[in-house]
Amino acid sequence: MINLRSMDCIRELCSKLPEGDEAAADAARARQAKLTKPPGSLGRLEDFAVFLARWQGEDGPRLDRVAMLVFAGSHGVASRGVSAFPAEVTAQMVANFATGGAAINQLAKQAGAKLSVFPLEVERPTGDFTQGPAMDEDEFLAAVRAGVDSVSDDFDLVCLGEMGIANTTVAAAVSAALFGGTGRDWVGRGTGVDDTGLARKAEVVDGALARHGAALADPLSALRLVGGRELAAMFGAALAARVRRIPLLLDGFVATAAAAPLARIAEGGLAHALAGHVSAEAQHRRLLGLLELEPILDLGMRLGEGSGACLAVNVLRGAVACHRGMATFAEAGVSGG
Amino acid sequence: MINLRSMDCIRELCSKLPEGDEAAADAARARQAKLTKPPGSLGRLEDFAVFLARWQGEDGPRLDRVAMLVFAGSHGVASRGVSAFPAEVTAQMVANFATGGAAINQLAKQAGAKLSVFPLEVERPTGDFTQGPAMDEDEFLAAVRAGVDSVSDDFDLVCLGEMGIANTTVAAAVSAALFGGTGRDWVGRGTGVDDTGLARKAEVVDGALARHGAALADPLSALRLVGGRELAAMFGAALAARVRRIPLLLDGFVATAAAAPLARIAEGGLAHALAGHVSAEAQHRRLLGLLELEPILDLGMRLGEGSGACLAVNVLRGAVACHRGMATFAEAGVSGG
Repeated sequence: MINLRSMDCIRELCSKLPEGDEAAADAARARQAKLTKPPGSLGRLEDFAVFLARWQGEDGPRLDRVAMLVFAGSHGVASRGVSAFPAEVTAQMVANFATGGAAINQLAKQAGAKLSVFPLEVERPTGDFTQGPAMDEDEFLAAVRAGVDSVSDDFDLVCLGEMGIANTTVAAAVSAALFGGTGRDWVGRGTGVDDTGLARKAEVVDGALARHGAALADPLSALRLVGGRELAAMFGAALAARVRRIPLLLDGFVATAAAAPLARIAEGGLAHALAGHVSAEAQHRRLLGLLELEPILDLGMRLGEGSGACLAVNVLRGAVACHRGMATFAEAGVSGG
Repeated sequence: MINLRSMDCIRELCSKLPEGDEAAADAARARQAKLTKPPGSLGRLEDFAVFLARWQGEDGPRLDRVAMLVFAGSHGVASRGVSAFPAEVTAQMVANFATGGAAINQLAKQAGAKLSVFPLEVERPTGDFTQGPAMDEDEFLAAVRAGVDSVSDDFDLVCLGEMGIANTTVAAAVSAALFGGTGRDWVGRGTGVDDTGLARKAEVVDGALARHGAALADPLSALRLVGGRELAAMFGAALAARVRRIPLLLDGFVATAAAAPLARIAEGGLAHALAGHVSAEAQHRRLLGLLELEPILDLGMRLGEGSGACLAVNVLRGAVACHRGMATFAEAGVSGG
């Protein structure tokens, strides 16, 4: 049971994050060297098998229980014309998730991932962070807890996705708070805004940076002040995955920005994470670079929902299938092993 | 029934390749615009859905019957120290395919692809192409036919893979013949040769270019003179897929080099092809660029066997799942469509 009564409880947890199981990783690496293929020829698939072994604590990694966790939230800044879609689309898309009509429903099914959607007070937007905090501490902790509670001990992999009109602006504000730079450095076209919309997004982020100033220096406070409920929940899920030593698969810009405070609070705080893809949202690549995460896929996607992560699950399944199923040189009687 | 009695029969076939179904592609594109997502936000997945519709001639693409065709051949130049593995590994790996122990067995199963392995006179290497032709016309035609015959009308997708110790040297020779350049421009480390091995590979390719000279100007002759049986068969399968309007998914450097003559013989001859991945074999990226093929995956793999293509099948499955399964804006009652 992870108990989070205060911001300090989160900080305390972040100060003693468990490391991966290097013995399991070494055993997986040793097995890779014996499989019937030239050493290293499966490229990153070999790394993924070793990575999963490290964070699952087992030589033979498995992906039997893959959780696709999608968090939805509404944002005060949505009223500032930062999205090509109206704010009510968030609730409409949550309904679409429930009836199985969204991209993530199809992709989760195809990837053999169990989709769970968590609407976080979608009817009650966070505060407009150009005017005040997005969330007070109670609201923030409730959202983080929703994320923490979504992660079960028996998951083999946790995938994070989100829905929330205006949340690429929120992710830009969080990124600027964590890594410096102005609004212009961090905003992109999101669902498809034009140049005017893009300029407005940059202004909104700059307004947030000006409004909150030095208070943003603390990564956790930054997530509360200029974040959103679905970002706080993804942070909580990323934290819970680490505490439980479950490998984590991020989706796009918003999910990455949500998890990023973990790496800012604790050195190596995202060592248990893989980036499912790099999105077309311009600044995602930059954020991944700062976090030293190399994306698995690069398909020009910019939908969110967990769509890129789901596609990457299949790549990880390939890695696991090879690791577990291939014959060794000795077993197959192949020369040169 | 595709009848190939002579080199001229192949040329004749290549002179009247069918085009894709643009009406089906347009219908698929129109459906994409109505699905519950910002326009274009599924990135290349949308392109893949339209591509599959075009070459399957149906608005609603499907991947029920995915064929993973793996061709194996032995090479005269294997005796020239161009591989990190001995020549007998080709036959040993064919046995490994048969007992299910190779990477491609695991990956094909994971991708829901039906694996078929075609050993092409593995016990009888082609001629050493630094000394004479790799194959005479009868040998070449037999290999091309094996590829043609491997493609059934009812396949939804044809994936090409291969096994053949020394065949990255062969692929380099074919690429140099088709696109110009020297051995050094086209060789890579293959299964993992050292600098001496790399220099030997370049010498072997240069020897082939010197030996065959102007005869290599004809793409089909080039494939016969400095190719190999598994490359000729992959060429045949790529041709048959085009004639039957079945989309084609290439694997790595060797599979791409094998299919490349089709694009050199006929303008747009590989319009029905996707590149499953770009391999770590240095010159694959260059070859894909010359063929204007953008790889789906980039995972540092260099195994061959069809391994990269298989992983890409899952991406295509995601594209098809979204295309077929997503609700439209109208169906889901989502604003902004």
